[in-house]
Parts: sequence; C-alpha cells; structure tokens
Amino acid sequence: MNELIQKGQLTNEAKIALGKLSSSDKNKALERVAGALIEHQKSILEANKMDIIHAEENGVKGTLIDRLTLNENRIKSMAEGIAKIMKLDDPIGEVLWMKKRPNGLEIGQRVVPLGVIGIIYEARPNVTVDAFALCFKTGNAVMLRGGKEAIHSNMKIVEVIREALKDANMPVDAVSLIEDTSRETATNMMKLNDYLDVLIPRGGAGLIQAVVHNSTVPVIETGVGNCHIYVDQDADLTMALDILVNAKTQRPGVCNACESLVVHEHVAEAFLPEACKGLKEHQVEIVGDPKSQSIVSDIGLADEADYGTEYLDYKISVKVVNDLDEAINHINRYNTKHSEAIITENYTHARRFLDEIDAAAVYVNASTRFTDGFEFGFGAEIGISTQKLHARGPMGLKELTTTKYTIYGNGQIRD
Amino acid sequence: MNELIQKGQLTNEAKIALGKLSSSDKNKALERVAGALIEHQKSILEANKMDIIHAEENGVKGTLIDRLTLNENRIKSMAEGIAKIMKLDDPIGEVLWMKKRPNGLEIGQRVVPLGVIGIIYEARPNVTVDAFALCFKTGNAVMLRGGKEAIHSNMKIVEVIREALKDANMPVDAVSLIEDTSRETATNMMKLNDYLDVLIPRGGAGLIQAVVHNSTVPVIETGVGNCHIYVDQDADLTMALDILVNAKTQRPGVCNACESLVVHEHVAEAFLPEACKGLKEHQVEIVGDPKSQSIVSDIGLADEADYGTEYLDYKISVKVVNDLDEAINHINRYNTKHSEAIITENYTHARRFLDEIDAAAVYVNASTRFTDGFEFGFGAEIGISTQKLHARGPMGLKELTTTKYTIYGNGQIRD
Repeated sequence: MNELIQKGQLTNEAKIALGKLSSSDKNKALERVAGALIEHQKSILEANKMDIIHAEENGVKGTLIDRLTLNENRIKSMAEGIAKIMKLDDPIGEVLWMKKRPNGLEIGQRVVPLGVIGIIYEARPNVTVDAFALCFKTGNAVMLRGGKEAIHSNMKIVEVIREALKDANMPVDAVSLIEDTSRETATNMMKLNDYLDVLIPRGGAGLIQAVVHNSTVPVIETGVGNCHIYVDQDADLTMALDILVNAKTQRPGVCNACESLVVHEHVAEAFLPEACKGLKEHQVEIVGDPKSQSIVSDIGLADEADYGTEYLDYKISVKVVNDLDEAINHINRYNTKHSEAIITENYTHARRFLDEIDAAAVYVNASTRFTDGFEFGFGAEIGISTQKLHARGPMGLKELTTTKYTIYGNGQIRD
Repeated sequence: MNELIQKGQLTNEAKIALGKLSSSDKNKALERVAGALIEHQKSILEANKMDIIHAEENGVKGTLIDRLTLNENRIKSMAEGIAKIMKLDDPIGEVLWMKKRPNGLEIGQRVVPLGVIGIIYEARPNVTVDAFALCFKTGNAVMLRGGKEAIHSNMKIVEVIREALKDANMPVDAVSLIEDTSRETATNMMKLNDYLDVLIPRGGAGLIQAVVHNSTVPVIETGVGNCHIYVDQDADLTMALDILVNAKTQRPGVCNACESLVVHEHVAEAFLPEACKGLKEHQVEIVGDPKSQSIVSDIGLADEADYGTEYLDYKISVKVVNDLDEAINHINRYNTKHSEAIITENYTHARRFLDEIDAAAVYVNASTRFTDGFEFGFGAEIGISTQKLHARGPMGLKELTTTKYTIYGNGQIRD
C-alpha cells in the first residue's frame, strides 16, 4: 500500500501542471520520449530478455510469450505510435459552449483532463508506452500496473520515459509504474479513490471482471465482445457469407470478431450449408442448435454456455430463429453490448435492428470487425468501452477528458 | 433478492419499448401522470399520513418529518414539475455526428437512453415523482428504492403513476419501486449489474459513500459539497462580503452552500472582522486557524476535521493563507470537487484559480450557490455530479443519456 500512496501523491502533484501544458509542449515531450525509446532500445531489449527467460522458466505458454516479446521492430512501432498521437488534435481547453445567463453570469463548459488515470493490464509492454502517450497527450497523469511477466520491461520503459520527460523539463510523475505486481496491490489500487480519478482495465475477461467487481474507483469497462451476425430472411446471402467469414476468421482473437451466427429460418437451408463450408475452410469449429443441426448434420450441439461465450478462437455458435423479434431477443440476451450486425435488404428490419439492439456499435451490412478507434477515424484507441457511462464504443483522446464549468461573474448572489 | 430480480427483468423488458417512444407520446403520458397525481391526491395524502404517524411513533426528528410530509401544495408542485419537464427538448434520437469513412461505411453517433436507471434515495417522496419523470422523458426505465420512512407514500405514488401509464398505453414497468426497504436489499441492488445500467444515489454523504463503496453497478456520485470562497489580496471586499454571506446563509443546508472561507493575509485584517460581523448577524458559528483567531479573537479554533467537513448548517471554517498557491493547495486538498469561488480583480489570479482548482464548477466573483441545473439553464436536475466520469456538475436530461454508434454499410469487410 505504501508504494500506491507514495506514487498516488506524486502523480496527483503532477496532474495540475500537466493540465496546464500547451499542446506544443506536450508534443515536444512526446517527441523526446519517442526518440529515447529508440536510443535506449538495447537496454529495453535486455530487460525484456530477462522477462522472457523468467516466463520460459515458469512454463508460460507461447502466445503469451509472443505478446511479451519485444524486438527492434516492435520498439520502432511503439515510437511510431507516439508520433501518430503527436499529430492528433489536442482536445484539452476547448470550451464546448458558453452562454450568458439572465443574471449576467457567463457559464462555459471547458474540456479538461480527467486527472490521474489508473491502468491495470497484463503482459504486453507496448501498452505501457501507448497508455502513457494517450494520457500525456490529454494532460492526464497515469499510474500503470502491468502484469508481473513484463515487470522488467515495464520498469525499464518507464525509466526511459521519465528520463525523457526530465530532459524536456516536464513533470516526471506524469507516469508512474507500480513495481509491486502482487494481486493484493492490484486490489488495493482498485480502492485508491483518493488518488485515482478513473481506472481502465486492459486485458482478458477475467481481469476486467475482477476490476469491475472490486473497484470503488470509477471504472471504464472495456473489451469483452460476444458479437453476433444476424442473417435476415431478406439478406443478400453472398454478402452475408463474405461478412460472416471475415468477421469470424480475419482475426479471431480480438473483441470485435464474430462469435455467434443467428439465421432466419427462411434462409437457413440456403445459407447454413454454404456458411459452414466457408467457415470450415478456415478450420472453424461450429456448434449449433437442433434446428441448425437438422440442416448441417456435421456440427456439434450448442449449449447455453456456448451462446454466452466469447471464444476468441476458431469456433462459432449458430442459432436459427423464427423471426426478427426472436433474433433481437436472443442477441440482447447473450451479447456483451459490444458490436452486432444485421445482414438485410429490408429497410424496416434494418431500422428495427439499429433501434432495438443494445450495443455500442450496431451495423447493417458490414463486418463487426470495424469497431475500433482507427477504423472510426479517431486516430487512436485506449480501449473499447462496453459500458454506457462516460464512453461507449471505441475510446479515443476525447474519452480521456472530462469537463469543468467555468463561471465569470461580477458579484452575483442568489436571491 | 427475488423482488429485485423480478422487477429487474420487467424493467429491462420495458426499456426497449421506452427507447423507441416518440417525444409526443412521452409527453402525453407525462401529462396523464401529472393529472393522475392531482386526481388521486387524497389517497396519496392518506398513505403519507401513515408514514408520518410511523415516523412520529419512532421518534424521527422534525426536519426529516418535514421532508417526508406531503400536502396539497406539495402534490401540486410535483405535478407542475412534470409539466416543466414536458416542455424541455427531448435529447433522444439526435445524431451528434455522422461521417462517411474512406471504405464507404457511414458511421453516426446517436443519443440513446441509458436503459434502466437505479435511484437509491431517502425520505423525500417528491424524489419518486421527479426521478420517474426525468427518466421517462429520456426513455429510461427506472428502479426506485426510497427510504423506509416514506414507503407508504412511495407505494401509492408509484401505483398512481403506473395506472396513468397503463391508461396512456405505455409500459407500466417504466417505473418500479422496490418495496423491501431493508438495508440488505439496498446492498443487493448495488450488485444488480445484469439489470441496472447505472445507479444514482440521492441523499446525504453517508448514503452516497455507501453506494460508491459497495456498488458494482456504475455509479454517478452526487451531492457532497465542501465549497470554499477564497478572498484574494486584490478582492473587492464589499463584493466579497456580499458573496460570502449569501453563499453561507441564503440556504445553508444545500450542497452548493459555502462551508469554508479562505483569506489572503494581506486583506485578512481588513476583511475578517467585517466578515465575522456579517456572518454572526446570521448566527453563523465561526472556527478559524490561529492566524484568523489573532485578528478576530472571538472565534473558535478550527481543527483538521473542520476543514474537511460539509457542515450543511450555520457554521463555517476560516483559513488565512500567504498567497494564491497556498489557497489553491488548501482548497484542492479539502474540497469535494463541487463548487469553488475566488473573489478578485486580478486577471492572472482569476485565470489561475479557474485553471488549477479541481472542481465541477469554478467561479470568479459570484456565489457558489448558483451550481444547479435550473440556474445553469438546463431546466431540470437529477443531481449534481462530483465525479469526473460521464457527467460533472449539474445533471439535466442530457446526462441521463448515452450514445450508440449506428453504422450503415454495403458489404464492407476488413482487410
């Protein structure tokens, strides 16, 4: 707890200065940080090597080691990521509206940083750089708590960033890494209301649920996507097939990939054999309800748990429905409010799906894979919010800000 | 728990229909509800009488009984409140922006209801009507859990509202009252993530902190205001006196009342005697630091706890500071991020105060008492947010909404 409080105090002292920085000063500092990452890549890679050796000794599996691993190209990507963030418009300081009230008070709503943002994440050292850059660009201090597997990499990266900030005459406590990677410290960080304005978990469903259920600090829930594609009775079935295969197989391990296919019974016989053939060409395992099994016999039986599962893998569940109502009810029951798509040429069905599906992003005739900050044109992304408060869907720079009312008077008192 | 789950399911079934209602249908239903409250005022007053008798039997104190008490005028005010909400613009359905991406996808951000809003409140039956009307106007279903002292009043009021909704062919489960007023049920409601999209506590600091610390449902923290007035070395001292006395005494029991006076040492000798005289004319108890005691000897000594206390009463703490930095640090340390004011004619000091004070509303040369939805021109208020996520400061209709991305494609897939 001592480390949390000590670093909580330091980041809070830094935040006021950060909130007042001009865009050009912030960009100069970010440029310095990007340069420093390249200059110090040798020592970063040495620290990363230690993490990899530990991970291998502890029998960590290959996909996790891949996420953990840095090399010259990945460090270059991190630096290029900072350069892209530099180019984005700085949202801080904009006055969204200002008006004069009948009593002469001038009330304005000004965009300001959130303050101190806590990020709890897993074993990807690139998140360390990315989260710092997005928070710094928006005038926020950031307290990072990465996974224990990446601790040496993270310590070195944060050291390099802090040195670069110092060189640029910026408050070094703009970024602070919690070096104690125990679960207890992570849990204590979730109660750090006096020092954190918001907590954003980045990682798998287990991590996110732990933060949502244990945090007293306001949380932005991100990431879990049990996304559906509904093929309506009036769908263009060729388009439906292209979109389904793309949304399922183009990158199955990400949150906006399709996890479940819902098909109207009128087109099930025409569509399902083609769909299953297309998916099986990509080695996708398919499980379905009895109705779909009666059409394509060589698929497994889906149970309740299948419909509620984000596979993040080459697997999909299938459900045949009687009508649009059943499709909407099924999706609203099992989805995680991330991204949902209808494939249809029917105007009223398209509108009803857009209106009635409860999700951050609802598509007509397109792949769910487009839900991200870059595809939406935000130029950056700290995560994809699946909650409704504060931010919903892809979160860019604007979602890392709040507002403050500034009020100019000349002696007004209340009657 | 059974009541929570059963009513949670019903409100969730209602929410989709509510989200699709047109403004004119919602207004017609609200008009019907306002009429029904007047028509059924006799039975509402009878139910209220039962609550008052119980409260008196249980030795509940007079101020609480006053808040609990309804009469014909108060019911009329409730109905008039609904009429005012009817006249406000409906934020639902507005598309904040829509753009065409290079791949032809048309992405728009549409304002939609939050879904189901939980409100946990105390013994004011008018909150029942007010919360329902604000939520209904914004297409949200609402689950209410009021204090046990008001249970008979609340049950009758909700019955009247539901009957009126039924008459207007609206989903009656737009509003649902949790009739089990045990603390255990309130705590369970704070974990009702499957059914509630947001939880808003309305009441005293104890209730709000209990919700913030126990809820896994996203919370909007409202209300607690430890507000300061800082009298700068360059203040117009006559204006400062008027504002101070107004902010402290015009209505001391509300969250935007002033609780602490901070004075620059250069003007302390000129200002404090006048200030104390003005406050004492309103029977305000004053406690101060040793420096202020050395100027006005007849005030008590303020301790650490005083500076952290929202008195909500005729009492104020005083602190003399060496400079603006000390004033800003003091206020940022002890405030609850609600409303803060500087009295100054100094341009740079005013700007620094606006920039560096971390609060929802920051004033130059005006009383903190103006922080509310009506004074800000929103025409309504569900509370004043003191957190930074989602809403900050007075919350009107817009703050009861979220957004959904609607995306129109013609077969786009991801490369």
